[in-house]
Amino acid sequence: MSLTAEIIAVGDELLRGSIVNTNAQAISLALAPLGIDVRWHTVVGDHPTPLRDALEIAKNRADILITTGGLGPTYDDLTKQTIAAAFDRKLVFYPDILEHIRSFFENSLHIAMPENNRQQAELPEGCTVFDNPVGTAPGCAFAANGVHVLMLPGPPVEMQPMLEHWVVPYLETLMDGVSVSHDLMTFGIGESSVDQLLHEKLTYGENPVIATYAKPAEVRIRITANAATTDGAEVLLSPVLEQVCALLGDYVYGIDIPSLEVRCMQLLKEKGLTFATAESCTGGQIAQRITALPGSSAVFRGGVVSYWSSVKYAVLGVPQELLDQYGAVSEQVARAMAEGAKRITGADLAVSATGVAGPDKDERGVDVGIVYIGLATPHGVFCRKMDVGMQRRDRIQGLAANHAFDLIRRYLTDLTI
Amino acid sequence: MSLTAEIIAVGDELLRGSIVNTNAQAISLALAPLGIDVRWHTVVGDHPTPLRDALEIAKNRADILITTGGLGPTYDDLTKQTIAAAFDRKLVFYPDILEHIRSFFENSLHIAMPENNRQQAELPEGCTVFDNPVGTAPGCAFAANGVHVLMLPGPPVEMQPMLEHWVVPYLETLMDGVSVSHDLMTFGIGESSVDQLLHEKLTYGENPVIATYAKPAEVRIRITANAATTDGAEVLLSPVLEQVCALLGDYVYGIDIPSLEVRCMQLLKEKGLTFATAESCTGGQIAQRITALPGSSAVFRGGVVSYWSSVKYAVLGVPQELLDQYGAVSEQVARAMAEGAKRITGADLAVSATGVAGPDKDERGVDVGIVYIGLATPHGVFCRKMDVGMQRRDRIQGLAANHAFDLIRRYLTDLTI
Repeated sequence: MSLTAEIIAVGDELLRGSIVNTNAQAISLALAPLGIDVRWHTVVGDHPTPLRDALEIAKNRADILITTGGLGPTYDDLTKQTIAAAFDRKLVFYPDILEHIRSFFENSLHIAMPENNRQQAELPEGCTVFDNPVGTAPGCAFAANGVHVLMLPGPPVEMQPMLEHWVVPYLETLMDGVSVSHDLMTFGIGESSVDQLLHEKLTYGENPVIATYAKPAEVRIRITANAATTDGAEVLLSPVLEQVCALLGDYVYGIDIPSLEVRCMQLLKEKGLTFATAESCTGGQIAQRITALPGSSAVFRGGVVSYWSSVKYAVLGVPQELLDQYGAVSEQVARAMAEGAKRITGADLAVSATGVAGPDKDERGVDVGIVYIGLATPHGVFCRKMDVGMQRRDRIQGLAANHAFDLIRRYLTDLTI
Repeated sequence: MSLTAEIIAVGDELLRGSIVNTNAQAISLALAPLGIDVRWHTVVGDHPTPLRDALEIAKNRADILITTGGLGPTYDDLTKQTIAAAFDRKLVFYPDILEHIRSFFENSLHIAMPENNRQQAELPEGCTVFDNPVGTAPGCAFAANGVHVLMLPGPPVEMQPMLEHWVVPYLETLMDGVSVSHDLMTFGIGESSVDQLLHEKLTYGENPVIATYAKPAEVRIRITANAATTDGAEVLLSPVLEQVCALLGDYVYGIDIPSLEVRCMQLLKEKGLTFATAESCTGGQIAQRITALPGSSAVFRGGVVSYWSSVKYAVLGVPQELLDQYGAVSEQVARAMAEGAKRITGADLAVSATGVAGPDKDERGVDVGIVYIGLATPHGVFCRKMDVGMQRRDRIQGLAANHAFDLIRRYLTDLTI
């Protein structure tokens, strides 16, 4: 019988709608592979009464109780005091933590520690302390009355590293053995097709488990095994991972990486190549997504957002005859845009996107959702035509950018484009 | 004494972490101006027992109970049945709703209605029906035992229009009169400075109320008045709106608009002008954000992402001497980039961004967080230097893009740049 968990977020800003509860999502995602059954998410305000009431309810229904928020130094940060009272734990002063907080102020923020941060060094007696390298509030965990209570800071930038480095290992000690996951990333196949393939062609038991998560045109397949040791889990994972990879073939673009653009950056670095962009309907999104990655200047030289045809002609050198004869949204222009970007930037490869993102058809009557993706390479120019139908503008732009990265990925791994 | 509300989301996909509970945020944002005090967000799985337990808790603590999800046609969509049982309401069949569902299938999806959608036409006896123009599941509301219960569908694309067109008007009838809000959008002043200014210089009572919401470098100030009629609320709002605008001066970039780029698009359209971009550290984000807006081709011609210095030289025509003498991150190069983009695209204005987004200093030792924003205009070239300090890469890129739009906005409204 698996352990159940409740995640309680403390914060008026959540109840006001100023922010969305991404912490609950991140914690749920981290707990699922451990085999912990998250049954409740709860949000209460920065006030001791509702939190105390929520704790009373939670401790009678969940085995693990994880709170986020309310660990700051101000008067309305009352999570620690309220939890300590609810579980009859004394708060005690930890001199080491005070030193950490003081040095965080002095070394990272270059100011002296305000006196009211002192109370952040008080934690429930006998707890396990979770270090916070990016902020002042440490987290902690303790067990009382058969319930495991974990307190985490509210800002996601502090919560996330603590979740990975402290919470998951702590919870693993409660489970039998360890759990290990691998994420298989696919592009170009829908979630229902993936599900059908896996169910029809794969026979597997309860360990490892396979779960699919869909983003537009992408499916992430998470395979998780539980075993006494990490090595034991990998032994269980390896054949299933191989089978799933074989089933999905070149839809799989990587394992344990976050996105297509990261895969492209890896491949370009390995091969010592650079690329450039020529964007029309994607409006700069391809360039923006690659430059969001630190270190992208090693592989990305730059590009042109040729939104107007005059810019396609004047900056990218797309022949006016092509624009007149075939229109801006055409295979011919996609190819010429890619060639132009390659030429003017001197990059090894250049990718282009021209299409109709909507809401209206283009002036020649080309339908919303039609996009041509071009790729200029030392081995010639390639082109893919997408027809994703009448969708929202942001979806069409995002899908087109994904296809552009997919074209680069397929070219660099010698796959059919 | 204001009414309290609890929002209960039903869905395993939330507890698994596959999606984040944006519905709770949207509902909280919609309820705040009505003066309804949202005190709890709860998430439970697709199973009658946890939902029944959550309803028992909620009906004893909240005046208004809003559920999302679980209204679909499949066996695990049990919200309606569970709520009806918890409040002793019979489910009755609504022939009109069945007709709506049937015609939705036939006219929008071009398929015959599956038989199991028939049960979506059953709703609690005597309820107010909320039409669903974009899906099959209607929402509804009823009052029982002093509690108002509202059921909404889970998909945000269905929930959001129902929230605006049905839920807000329904809840307004529970309140005394109507409430009207205006959003005052500011850029370049911090939330604490806004708060301080408003508290020190403004005297106002409990109606209208003022709330501030912070995004990086932006503060949205929402002013909400309650009155018997909309006109009455506007009369209360008008002087406060004027006072706040006067206090904040040209930090205010607009009223009731979503973003700086929307303001720029309005101004450019009014004046019949076009612009172009020359982006280095923002990597295409300025172009991407303007082209995310439908109709942006009227004002945006295109731009260059000159990530490498060679692209600044070869495509934008930035003189090599400037690059050698001052480095790519310099006022001189920002100015030359903007001039180059204006020249090669033929746009009336061009904006540029060159800086260090990190995580490392540039090769000349310029610190992370230093960005130069240039603006080429028919009246000469302007430049703003930003120093936002050592922040996360995505924050620096986003702030730089905001500053670029702010420069355009200030130029077009004859403000000091």
